[in-house]
Amino acid sequence: MSRQPSPGVFAESGLFLCFEGGEGAGKSTQARLLRDWLGSRGHTVVLTFEPGDTEVGKELRRIVLDPATGDLSPRTELLLYAADKAEHVRRVVRPALERGEVVITDRYVDSSLAYQGAGRTLDGAEVEWVQRWATADLRPHLTVVLDVAPEAGLGRFEERDRIEAESTEFHDRARQAFLDLAARDPEHYLVLDARAAVEDIAAAVRARVEPLLGRLA
Amino acid sequence: MSRQPSPGVFAESGLFLCFEGGEGAGKSTQARLLRDWLGSRGHTVVLTFEPGDTEVGKELRRIVLDPATGDLSPRTELLLYAADKAEHVRRVVRPALERGEVVITDRYVDSSLAYQGAGRTLDGAEVEWVQRWATADLRPHLTVVLDVAPEAGLGRFEERDRIEAESTEFHDRARQAFLDLAARDPEHYLVLDARAAVEDIAAAVRARVEPLLGRLA
Repeated sequence: MSRQPSPGVFAESGLFLCFEGGEGAGKSTQARLLRDWLGSRGHTVVLTFEPGDTEVGKELRRIVLDPATGDLSPRTELLLYAADKAEHVRRVVRPALERGEVVITDRYVDSSLAYQGAGRTLDGAEVEWVQRWATADLRPHLTVVLDVAPEAGLGRFEERDRIEAESTEFHDRARQAFLDLAARDPEHYLVLDARAAVEDIAAAVRARVEPLLGRLA
Repeated sequence: MSRQPSPGVFAESGLFLCFEGGEGAGKSTQARLLRDWLGSRGHTVVLTFEPGDTEVGKELRRIVLDPATGDLSPRTELLLYAADKAEHVRRVVRPALERGEVVITDRYVDSSLAYQGAGRTLDGAEVEWVQRWATADLRPHLTVVLDVAPEAGLGRFEERDRIEAESTEFHDRARQAFLDLAARDPEHYLVLDARAAVEDIAAAVRARVEPLLGRLA
């Protein structure tokens, strides 16, 4: 309930990694490559995503992304994403971290700050408070932002969901939000140009992740 | 984002009335009787309820109440109720008030404060902040609390949903929360013993509502 942004809560065991960025930035490709590399080094990895990687989350994902849902109020949309996050952290992320495993998530709190905060132009501090509360302020040890211009990323999709179908201005605001989040906490962020070659991006991610592996048993 | 409870926002047009209380207190009966009385006096009345009286809300109601959903995390549950409220206020309550009509809702924010706050023992201030944010802090001009002991109210149900199936202690905490909310803002609350005769309760409600009708055109 404080006005001050909290410094966040970092899990004491396990390693929590996150990929963020615009649509079509290659997050899921990079998440899989990182998973495979960590797996080849003997680490147990949970590869997950938001929204929708729990039983309840599947239903919420359908509601927020299905064009048939139509015009949700911005607060409703934000709260549905927050409910998905609360369930995801409780059921998937935290249990794996408590087992000392690596969690790689494709999208997390920053996506809501970018899309429902900056994108929808709700009050940023209030949006952040809701999302931090939903996740009990659990933060990734490292968030990799794959930065891409909206016109480049979205060009990859022929059929767009409710979020993808938003305006270029909406996606521009979201992109800037990801960069601002990274700039305010460089210790826990890595920003990479999503136009680079897939293998070059993967190598840069590995180089940043490798020193963090010492924390795993 | 303030630590201080806000005084709330009261609609300038229309009349917003709410029935709260435990399960089996007779809220829906009293809401209908009040609707009929107001209608007979020529007022346009929207009779509504939470959770579930919007398209999205129907799906959320099913998730939060269906025993098949199983063990939701307390934060998830609260956020789903909040999402339902945000949609309800935006789609149903506020438009009717802006048309100058009477809105009577069977349950509103206080139910979440009672069941997800006091009942689930989440931090009360945080629960309240989330629910106030969801509704943009819109408050009823009058909330009627029908007070009933849990063992009396719940005895009326043979099949119980996820909330009704909670312990007597859970429902006792919720009951006390309704009474505490009423005690802190007597100008906007009326507490009645739900064991009284239906017609006596209805008469007491009418007596309290009648002076508020002057605000309607």
